[in-house]
Amino acid sequence: MKAYVFHGPGQSGWEETADPVLGEPTDAIVRVDAVTVCGTDLHILKGDVPEVRPGTVLGHEAVGEIVEAGRDVHSVRPGDRVLISCISACGRCRYCREAMYGQCRGGGWVLGHLIDGTQAEYVRVPYADFSVHQLPATVTDQDAVLLADIFPTGYEVGVLNGHVRPGDTIVVVGAGPVGLAAIATARLLSPERIVAVDVTAARLEAARKVGADAVAAAQENPEQLVADLTGGLGADVAIEAVGVPDTFEMCTRMVRPGGHVANVGVHGKPATLHLEDLWSKNITITTGLVDTHSTPTLLRMAAAGRLPTAQLVTHTFPLDRMEEAYDVFARAADTGALKVVLGGPRRDVGAV
Amino acid sequence: MKAYVFHGPGQSGWEETADPVLGEPTDAIVRVDAVTVCGTDLHILKGDVPEVRPGTVLGHEAVGEIVEAGRDVHSVRPGDRVLISCISACGRCRYCREAMYGQCRGGGWVLGHLIDGTQAEYVRVPYADFSVHQLPATVTDQDAVLLADIFPTGYEVGVLNGHVRPGDTIVVVGAGPVGLAAIATARLLSPERIVAVDVTAARLEAARKVGADAVAAAQENPEQLVADLTGGLGADVAIEAVGVPDTFEMCTRMVRPGGHVANVGVHGKPATLHLEDLWSKNITITTGLVDTHSTPTLLRMAAAGRLPTAQLVTHTFPLDRMEEAYDVFARAADTGALKVVLGGPRRDVGAV
Amino acid sequence: MKAYVFHGPGQSGWEETADPVLGEPTDAIVRVDAVTVCGTDLHILKGDVPEVRPGTVLGHEAVGEIVEAGRDVHSVRPGDRVLISCISACGRCRYCREAMYGQCRGGGWVLGHLIDGTQAEYVRVPYADFSVHQLPATVTDQDAVLLADIFPTGYEVGVLNGHVRPGDTIVVVGAGPVGLAAIATARLLSPERIVAVDVTAARLEAARKVGADAVAAAQENPEQLVADLTGGLGADVAIEAVGVPDTFEMCTRMVRPGGHVANVGVHGKPATLHLEDLWSKNITITTGLVDTHSTPTLLRMAAAGRLPTAQLVTHTFPLDRMEEAYDVFARAADTGALKVVLGGPRRDVGAV
Amino acid sequence: MKAYVFHGPGQSGWEETADPVLGEPTDAIVRVDAVTVCGTDLHILKGDVPEVRPGTVLGHEAVGEIVEAGRDVHSVRPGDRVLISCISACGRCRYCREAMYGQCRGGGWVLGHLIDGTQAEYVRVPYADFSVHQLPATVTDQDAVLLADIFPTGYEVGVLNGHVRPGDTIVVVGAGPVGLAAIATARLLSPERIVAVDVTAARLEAARKVGADAVAAAQENPEQLVADLTGGLGADVAIEAVGVPDTFEMCTRMVRPGGHVANVGVHGKPATLHLEDLWSKNITITTGLVDTHSTPTLLRMAAAGRLPTAQLVTHTFPLDRMEEAYDVFARAADTGALKVVLGGPRRDVGAV
Repeated sequence: MKAYVFHGPGQSGWEETADPVLGEPTDAIVRVDAVTVCGTDLHILKGDVPEVRPGTVLGHEAVGEIVEAGRDVHSVRPGDRVLISCISACGRCRYCREAMYGQCRGGGWVLGHLIDGTQAEYVRVPYADFSVHQLPATVTDQDAVLLADIFPTGYEVGVLNGHVRPGDTIVVVGAGPVGLAAIATARLLSPERIVAVDVTAARLEAARKVGADAVAAAQENPEQLVADLTGGLGADVAIEAVGVPDTFEMCTRMVRPGGHVANVGVHGKPATLHLEDLWSKNITITTGLVDTHSTPTLLRMAAAGRLPTAQLVTHTFPLDRMEEAYDVFARAADTGALKVVLGGPRRDVGAV
Repeated sequence: MKAYVFHGPGQSGWEETADPVLGEPTDAIVRVDAVTVCGTDLHILKGDVPEVRPGTVLGHEAVGEIVEAGRDVHSVRPGDRVLISCISACGRCRYCREAMYGQCRGGGWVLGHLIDGTQAEYVRVPYADFSVHQLPATVTDQDAVLLADIFPTGYEVGVLNGHVRPGDTIVVVGAGPVGLAAIATARLLSPERIVAVDVTAARLEAARKVGADAVAAAQENPEQLVADLTGGLGADVAIEAVGVPDTFEMCTRMVRPGGHVANVGVHGKPATLHLEDLWSKNITITTGLVDTHSTPTLLRMAAAGRLPTAQLVTHTFPLDRMEEAYDVFARAADTGALKVVLGGPRRDVGAV
Repeated sequence: MKAYVFHGPGQSGWEETADPVLGEPTDAIVRVDAVTVCGTDLHILKGDVPEVRPGTVLGHEAVGEIVEAGRDVHSVRPGDRVLISCISACGRCRYCREAMYGQCRGGGWVLGHLIDGTQAEYVRVPYADFSVHQLPATVTDQDAVLLADIFPTGYEVGVLNGHVRPGDTIVVVGAGPVGLAAIATARLLSPERIVAVDVTAARLEAARKVGADAVAAAQENPEQLVADLTGGLGADVAIEAVGVPDTFEMCTRMVRPGGHVANVGVHGKPATLHLEDLWSKNITITTGLVDTHSTPTLLRMAAAGRLPTAQLVTHTFPLDRMEEAYDVFARAADTGALKVVLGGPRRDVGAV
Repeated sequence: MKAYVFHGPGQSGWEETADPVLGEPTDAIVRVDAVTVCGTDLHILKGDVPEVRPGTVLGHEAVGEIVEAGRDVHSVRPGDRVLISCISACGRCRYCREAMYGQCRGGGWVLGHLIDGTQAEYVRVPYADFSVHQLPATVTDQDAVLLADIFPTGYEVGVLNGHVRPGDTIVVVGAGPVGLAAIATARLLSPERIVAVDVTAARLEAARKVGADAVAAAQENPEQLVADLTGGLGADVAIEAVGVPDTFEMCTRMVRPGGHVANVGVHGKPATLHLEDLWSKNITITTGLVDTHSTPTLLRMAAAGRLPTAQLVTHTFPLDRMEEAYDVFARAADTGALKVVLGGPRRDVGAV
């Protein structure tokens, strides 16, 4: 089959590689019908994620059809159309029993990381019972693929960890795909207002489209805007969706006493935590890898048309134009890319 | 009357000053029968808390008798024996309505900070209805005075913020008075084990007496001990009760994925938050000034003999030997002081 | 002044009575600008609420202007436009400190019950600091008066007690004013669907307007509808908003294992609890008098136009046509009345 | 092998029957080393549980050794000493994913109910990965067997559902084995006091031994005692551990406004719910079949010697004296039996 293979920093391509085969009886083989590229994939290409070995097929988000299932797979069977979650979960370890699948002792984020991933014509999914979700017929491939990672990430790690409640003031710093998913799912809990902060006007415009009530350019004193909107008190919840020290620290300054800072961003460097200011402020800071425990709920919301998934897909390609898709996604500042979705010839999703 | 007055860094003493008088109709005047010195008082003496103006009477913990009450004080009357909470609460602001009294918009920690405090023969307590608690007859002054600050601080900011649950492994870093209060109140929730970490052997010995199951010298790799005790996973809850960057960072390394770091320490400098490691670990970090919402519960526990308050009082003095008490407390490394309690001649609590 | 005075079962009228005067220093006198009639008022008229003494002015919901405030009232002053909550709260008792104002040891529901109420030109409100709320300029009297009782009741006792969550299936049995408020505020938490059950088509139609996704006549097997919609499992949350045994018992049959039954209805008779079926089903049943702790949040939501308050007001009258308003409200089956709102000549709210 | 077989109401005995064999690859066969009899078994013998078919081996609590494991069993292997939980859980259904194993769509309480149970020399345990727990070496068979059902039932359905908190007043109505387990595990959360209510003096004495602070004979006005202890307010939590309407209704009268009634008892008849009194009292009533999600925690507590399991075992027998054990247990009023434990000749636990 063809797949997008990582060969080391700066070396990768869409090329012929061996078909995946069942390993464990809990595995399933899925034919990939739609797949997307994640910011993390770009980090891998740069060499920032050293545990990814050369030869690994990248990708951890996809929609497809089960073509083969191990003898211990009970929830799905060949022919089923499924969402492949970015998290593979054994279902039995201590963390899985608490639905904290991202911390699974034998799984977690493994696809396109520790084992071959989804940017391929076929993929082996371990622990299929806990790692794929049957898709409602009314959810398109393109909508569904956004629920493999970014929507549950924004919702669980941003909105739920942040304890968003009706009437709250929410700040989301970073309006990339995950930040936009956080904005869209924060709306489900009816905050009074959501303020989006980003450096680019196009992303702030996208933020408005998915539900931000106010937007602020990062360089134009968003802290003052939040203070003004809240009588000087600060936001109830600040969601960090960038992954750099500056934006994390901005979040800790924008939150009110008693509020929550929910870190969603993937960080490569430490941040400074100003405990000399924060020790007495009763704030709660959370971090987290997505668990995808909310995926069934989000799928129902998507089926009911309540998630603005389509707003996040800016470009679509057939599967074999993976390299072009990577290029468009990597040059987001120029191309305006949010999410790029690739679909095989069987169900080409067309231009947006 | 006599009181301990701050005149600027390094300048303070037990001296004659004006008697307090009722200001607002919600004030009460309390005759001080027992009072203690807090580590924060030492910081004030050093000049680390610049908002304390010269001329201020220090102290925010006391037990005494109401001698006069404003016309709008409804909960207590002259003659009542009361605990003076370290937190004064207006009872009406947004934060008070959520029982987050430490963040009271017009109160909070004001005694011995923004207004005259309790290290005196008499003290004016603002918002008396929300700032003093009637004392059960069976609780001695000496036991009660520990419930003005350190026990609710250890319990609320350490144990409750940290979500201590039966069966958990808890680490408490810092076995000074507040750390010991955290250990003693963590026991109320039946963790499997409590590990105390400190630099001095005497404090680790005190930790064992109030309920630590294991102790580790900070210099002898407590992280390895915690790893060994938990199968390499880490503690469910790490409570920081020192207030320096190193111990905070140690806590973030000792906590398991999905666990809690509850910061209790008063910090003067920023810490480094290693988000490059922590972003994916599903941890929760909390900070907080005590709210004292738990004081009524703790008073009932004390009355029932369930709090090891006596273990924490190492020295007692009559009230007029305040300067000596400060000296003993300030030289804790030499004197072995944990809490020093001063009582007036009326109810001199004697030697321990 | 004129007021609607209860003289015993079946005897009441809009008549001249003494003006209210300040009693306690925490009282305020409010000029009533808008007021409504509650189903509970009808129960009082029938003699079902024996603690209401003859001579009492009825009514516990109103909007008006502070004309006089006791010396210990700090939150409002003469000239302020306020919402009078149906719950008066001392702010100091054990329950008030937990924001459980409905259980206030000295207050709770007293207006138009144990003391003179709001169906009058002027009313004395006890504990004004905790019992009235300043109104945003953008909320009309007519919208605001619905936040005195029915909106916080539907939201707190129905939606919050019922733990409504995104993606849930909710059943609301009873589409009178409080049931409609429960439906409208359940939407704030984005359930997958809300099913409304009632006996009258007009109320089911109103339910659709405020947000029900499906409706069922009580006589046409709503239990089957809920089973069909949920794959036979049952509703996540069933909200009882009628107050009779049959509908309560229906709710306990319609809820799924692990679900919540939130009782909002005011009951006059016991219900049968089928513990022989329910003991093993992990269900949670809650009851509650409204606390009105959510009123500030709901006011912000109303100011932002997010509550369909206007949908619930079917009739308006000037204040002096109180008797006619009672008649229209009492004959709701004929008149189609949901809420009737009365406004004084100063701000006559006109016909709907 | 020998087993205790139910042949219809009043007909049962310890007799020869076929050895169990592996059915599904997730099954395990366990050699029974210790087993006990539950009050539910007596109900089955009387014919009160009609879904139990003649020919079924009874029993749902045991400790033993894995002798054979299906190819898909991953957590245990032959030779492992295990606790067999009363709940068998598939681990994959909606309820299992929320750790609500008692509601498992394909499992739940099946042993000795829908399939052959544990009162036998060998038993087949379905879904072994989620239905047995490896035993720490320091926990004896006799202590461990009490953790198969009654300790998690008392803890989860009584203590956790009832939200027991430090400082609370708890009433436990019914001091049979499960009520005693509720008392013992409520202590883990340091309530101020636990009041036990029962009809027999011996059980009240047992209640004191496992941690009740006060006891009351059911016939001697326990409601007055609770009122006296709580200043007339009522208990924070009332736990029903009998299973008849009278005791349930007593619990609803003894709870304070804002409190919890946790039903643990197995009921055969409906109770009356006095909503005419309770509608406004903000109470929460919970029901539940045990989920056994707390079993790992309780095992750690038992290993640490923190559960008074031994206090509950009044009689021990070798396994082949099952009929005598049933007789002693059934005549508890005469024999004083709480729990009877049967052990095979291999590890005869001797007389108590």
